[in-house]
Amino acid sequence: MDTLHARGFNGCGVQEIAAAAGVPKGSVYNHFESKEALGVAALDRYFAERTRQRLEVLQDRSLSPLMRLLRYFEGLREGLEARGFACGCMIGNLSAELSDQSEQMRERLAVHFAEWTRTLESCVGEAQRAGEIRADIPAGMAASFLLNAWEGAILRARVERSAAPFEAFRSVVFTVLRG
Amino acid sequence: MDTLHARGFNGCGVQEIAAAAGVPKGSVYNHFESKEALGVAALDRYFAERTRQRLEVLQDRSLSPLMRLLRYFEGLREGLEARGFACGCMIGNLSAELSDQSEQMRERLAVHFAEWTRTLESCVGEAQRAGEIRADIPAGMAASFLLNAWEGAILRARVERSAAPFEAFRSVVFTVLRG
Repeated sequence: MDTLHARGFNGCGVQEIAAAAGVPKGSVYNHFESKEALGVAALDRYFAERTRQRLEVLQDRSLSPLMRLLRYFEGLREGLEARGFACGCMIGNLSAELSDQSEQMRERLAVHFAEWTRTLESCVGEAQRAGEIRADIPAGMAASFLLNAWEGAILRARVERSAAPFEAFRSVVFTVLRG
Repeated sequence: MDTLHARGFNGCGVQEIAAAAGVPKGSVYNHFESKEALGVAALDRYFAERTRQRLEVLQDRSLSPLMRLLRYFEGLREGLEARGFACGCMIGNLSAELSDQSEQMRERLAVHFAEWTRTLESCVGEAQRAGEIRADIPAGMAASFLLNAWEGAILRARVERSAAPFEAFRSVVFTVLRG
């Protein structure tokens, strides 16, 4: 998973992935029918271990819904800054690299984005009902927009090697969503 | 350029690029010292021929500044829809794929993003002075945010094969920026 995340799907070979996992290349093909199937399994694991786990802060009832959203993106940002903005988000990277090249990958990406958006949507809806976020934008649309804008901010932060895109994300999104 | 755009930098070889250009592989290395240098030249050409050219609508004084911004993103969206969301934006793709792998590419991406942002910033500033966009967000930050959010919307549109992320972008951005 780490090799695919760091090098990109087309930027590393099965040999390199097997070596990083400390297994012979042949054993990869005992478990996965293709590099594509291995990539999809790595994506699923990334979503389960990194993305879904971090979303737990959105359930923290000790914080207001808007504060949970701020904490959530702040946590993602800290993780990215800690590694010098390297690698970015594996989900965004695979979206850019493989959406046209692997139907299997594209479908799994869509499934993960949908779950991710629903979790954000539920918190955005709470924030709207609490009067913390303007209510004239449907919660699902706002959640989807937040997530997409965040993925774009990551791309830019990697190019600039700077947290400025995350600052812009936070300032603009939270200034304007409050109305 | 089209081959690199469609396949990604690591998804195609110099052989495939040369074949698409109808030249022998050896002649590529007469012109470019490496695949990386060829990739940077393709990026520069993409920015000059696609990105910069489309930005001209932002100078159209027959439209209000906000209307120019709307038209600009609408034009980008039409282009992406016309090709079934395939390929996305070469600048976004290279950002995801190569920011950590090629310092030369990362630096050129930063230069192009900076020019792109300045052009948007100038139109956002006009829109603010005309009272069309809320003035409590610095124009440069708003422009950078718009561009990054747009790149994220493209990633998502490719995964979903749907214009919904562009709809969300337009609705949210232009509802909230108007204040």
